[in-house]
Amino acid sequence: MGQTITEKIFSRACGKDVKAGEFVFAPVDMAMANDITAPLAVKAFREIKGKGVFDPKKIVIVFDHQAPADSVTAAENHKMLREFAKEEGVILYDVGEGIAHQIMVEKHVKPGMLVVGADSHTCTYGALGAFATGVGSTDMGCVFASGKLWFKVPETIRFEINGKLGKHVYGKDIILKLIGMVSAKGATYKACEFGGEVVRELNVSERLTMCNMAVEMGGKTGIVEPDKVTLEYLKEMEIEFDGDVEELRSDEDANYEKIVELDVTDMSPQVAKPHKVDNVVDVEEVEGTKIDQVFIGSCTNGRYEDLKIASDILEGESVTKGVRLIVVPASKRVYIKALKDGIIEKLVDAGAIVEFPCCGPCMGGSFGLIASGEVSLSTSNRNFIGRQGSPKGFIYLCSPATAAASAIYGEITDPRKV
Amino acid sequence: MGQTITEKIFSRACGKDVKAGEFVFAPVDMAMANDITAPLAVKAFREIKGKGVFDPKKIVIVFDHQAPADSVTAAENHKMLREFAKEEGVILYDVGEGIAHQIMVEKHVKPGMLVVGADSHTCTYGALGAFATGVGSTDMGCVFASGKLWFKVPETIRFEINGKLGKHVYGKDIILKLIGMVSAKGATYKACEFGGEVVRELNVSERLTMCNMAVEMGGKTGIVEPDKVTLEYLKEMEIEFDGDVEELRSDEDANYEKIVELDVTDMSPQVAKPHKVDNVVDVEEVEGTKIDQVFIGSCTNGRYEDLKIASDILEGESVTKGVRLIVVPASKRVYIKALKDGIIEKLVDAGAIVEFPCCGPCMGGSFGLIASGEVSLSTSNRNFIGRQGSPKGFIYLCSPATAAASAIYGEITDPRKV
Repeated sequence: MGQTITEKIFSRACGKDVKAGEFVFAPVDMAMANDITAPLAVKAFREIKGKGVFDPKKIVIVFDHQAPADSVTAAENHKMLREFAKEEGVILYDVGEGIAHQIMVEKHVKPGMLVVGADSHTCTYGALGAFATGVGSTDMGCVFASGKLWFKVPETIRFEINGKLGKHVYGKDIILKLIGMVSAKGATYKACEFGGEVVRELNVSERLTMCNMAVEMGGKTGIVEPDKVTLEYLKEMEIEFDGDVEELRSDEDANYEKIVELDVTDMSPQVAKPHKVDNVVDVEEVEGTKIDQVFIGSCTNGRYEDLKIASDILEGESVTKGVRLIVVPASKRVYIKALKDGIIEKLVDAGAIVEFPCCGPCMGGSFGLIASGEVSLSTSNRNFIGRQGSPKGFIYLCSPATAAASAIYGEITDPRKV
Repeated sequence: MGQTITEKIFSRACGKDVKAGEFVFAPVDMAMANDITAPLAVKAFREIKGKGVFDPKKIVIVFDHQAPADSVTAAENHKMLREFAKEEGVILYDVGEGIAHQIMVEKHVKPGMLVVGADSHTCTYGALGAFATGVGSTDMGCVFASGKLWFKVPETIRFEINGKLGKHVYGKDIILKLIGMVSAKGATYKACEFGGEVVRELNVSERLTMCNMAVEMGGKTGIVEPDKVTLEYLKEMEIEFDGDVEELRSDEDANYEKIVELDVTDMSPQVAKPHKVDNVVDVEEVEGTKIDQVFIGSCTNGRYEDLKIASDILEGESVTKGVRLIVVPASKRVYIKALKDGIIEKLVDAGAIVEFPCCGPCMGGSFGLIASGEVSLSTSNRNFIGRQGSPKGFIYLCSPATAAASAIYGEITDPRKV
C-alpha cells in the first residue's frame, strides 16, 4: 500500500514509516504564534521549562491581530513578546510586517515540512506541500520547549477538481463550493488533499486560499502536492529548497478515506451566506443583496494576485456612495509590490480605504467593525455571528472579484457581468 | 480705537460693532462635529428641537476618531450619524476621508467666517483668517438647532514673530516655543493672533500647525490675518472666496491685551517633554533619549508638507530596528497627493507604517498605543499622561523633521544634524 503526501511527511519527520490513524510524537520543522496566541504560549513555556526554546530559528512570532497595538493590553503583550524574542533569539515580525500565515509562506515554509501554528488557519501552508496545522496556545508552549508534539496522523480526503474554470471563478469559489458540498464538519481531522487538473493549473496564491479554508470543513490541514508551480513560487520568494518535489506526491495506490470529485466547468462564483461557512450558494441566488461594507484582505485573500483582480475590476470605476471598501494587503511584501505597480493607487482612486498589512476586519478586531443590521461582504474565511462586529450584522463570504464588482454596485454582484 | 481681526469677525457676524469683553449671541457660518462628539450633539439637538437643523449646508460631520469603526459602539454611532445626515441633509464625510479639521480647511472654511466645532482643535482654522473655536457637544446641539451661540468676544494676545528660521525649524517649533514661554494657561480664553515677518513667510500648512496648538496655551482660538499666501491656498483647494482680505487685518490701533515678541533667529528645534505641552526645551536638551514609537500625523502635522519634510529626511535611510514609525496622512487629499508624488513609497521603503487618513495614535484610540515604560515621539499636540496608551508611557512632541530624524537613530535627534 502506498502513502499519501501527509503520511510521507509524518514518516520523514518521525524517521520511520507511519500510517494514517497512528499516534506519533513528531518533531516539527517550524512553529508559529501570533500576538493573540503567543502570550499564552510563552506563559505555558515559562511554566514548563522557564528558559531555552528548542530551536530559536524554528520559532516565529508575528504581530498581526492587534497591530499596531489597538489597546494598552495589546501594547503590553507586544512589549513582553519583543523581550521574549530578544532573550530567546526567536524570529519576530513586528507590527506592519503582515499576517503571520502570509509571512510564513513568503519566508519560511518549504515542501515536506511539518509545521504547527497557534492559529487555526495555519493549514494555509499546505499549499506549498507542507503539512501545517493549527494547535492551541498551551500546546505551542510545549513545542517552544521540546520542539515536538503528539499527532494522530490524519486520514486523507482527496478532492479531485477537474473541468475548466470560467471567467472570474477562482480558487476561493472552488473551496467555498467544496465546503458547501461536504459541510463544515465534513472533513473533521482529515488531511484535505486538493488535486486534479484544475488545482495543477492554479497559481500558489489560489492554492493558498483553498488550503486556508480546509479548516472550515473541519480539516486538520489542506494540502497540495508540490510541483513546478510551487518551485517557481519558492524561487520568487527566495526560499531555498533543495528537496525533490517528486518524492512529495501521494502514491498512486495511496489509501484515501474518500475521494470527492468536482467538475468546475460552468460553475458560478460562490457565496457563503450568514451565518455559516457551509451555507454556500451560486452568486445568482444572492445577487442584489444590499451591502454596507466590503473587505478585501486576510490570510485567505489578501495577496498581490487578489488585489490585482480587484483593481482590474475597479479601475476607472467608483465604489458606490454609502459603501465602505476596506482593502488590507496581507503582508508588507504584498503592499510594496502593489504600491510600486500602481495597484494601491487604482484602488484608492476608485474609493477604497487601503490600510497597512494586518488581519484587519476579518475577525472584528482593530477596525472595520459592522453595526447591527449592516451587511459585510468579505473575502475572509468566517461569517459566524458577530465575527466582524455586531452580532446583529450579516457577513457574506466571496472572492476578491465578487467583492470588487459588488463594491461598485452596492449590492452583491456577479463579477462576470462587470 | 481700531479693531482686531477677531473683533471684526464678530462684528460682521453680529451685524453691529462689538468689542472684546462683550457677550454676543452670534450666528455661526459653519459647525463641525466628529464621530465622538456628534452623537452627543445629535442627542442634545433631538431634545431641543427634534427635527430640522438651522441650515444643513453649514453643518459638517466627520468620522475621524474611530474610523473605520474600532468597536461595535463606534459602528452603531456611525450608523446613527449616517441616518441623521441623510434625514437632515447635513454634510457627512464618512470613514477614510480624513481628520475633521483638515477637511474643514480643505473644503469649507473661508477668511472672516465664524466657525464652531465640537472638538478642541477647531482653533486650527484660524490659520485662514477665520475665527474658529471648539465648543462642547451639547452646545453643538444648540447650534444644530438654532445656528447661533453665546460667546464672549475674546481679548487678543498678539504674538509677533520676527527674525529668520534656521534649517529644519518650523511652525511647530515656534508654537511649542511660545507655549513654553507663556505656559499652558498663558492665553486662557484669548484670541492668539500670530503675526510678524516670520508668520507672513510661513505657508498655510505651518500656520495651521501654529493655530492648531493655540488651545494648548488656553487660547480660545489661534488666528492669522489672511494674505496672498491664504488666497493662493484657497485657490489650490478650490474654495471660492470673493471677500477682501485687506478688510480682515487688525487695525494698527487695535487694542491688544498683550504683545508677545519672539525672535526665532538661531532658535533650535523644540521638544515638549512629558507630561505637559508647556514643558518645552531645545532639542539639544533631550537628544539621545531612546524612543520606541514615532508618530507623524494628526491635525497638527499630518499634511502633505509635513510628510514631504519627513520623506526628504528618510529617503535612502532606514527606520532603526526596534522603533515603529507610524505615518497617518491627515486627509484623503493629502494621502492621494503623497501617493502620486511617491512620498508614501519613500516612507514605506524607509520602514514606515502608513495608515489611511484618520486621527490615528494621537489620542490613543484605534491603534498605535504604547505600553508602560515606552517612549512615543509624536508630531501631534498633546503629551498628557495616558494620552497615547499606558499611563506609564512617555510622550514627547516635536516637528515632523525632528520625528523623522529621530526614527532613523532610535533616539531623539536634532534634525539639523541629519
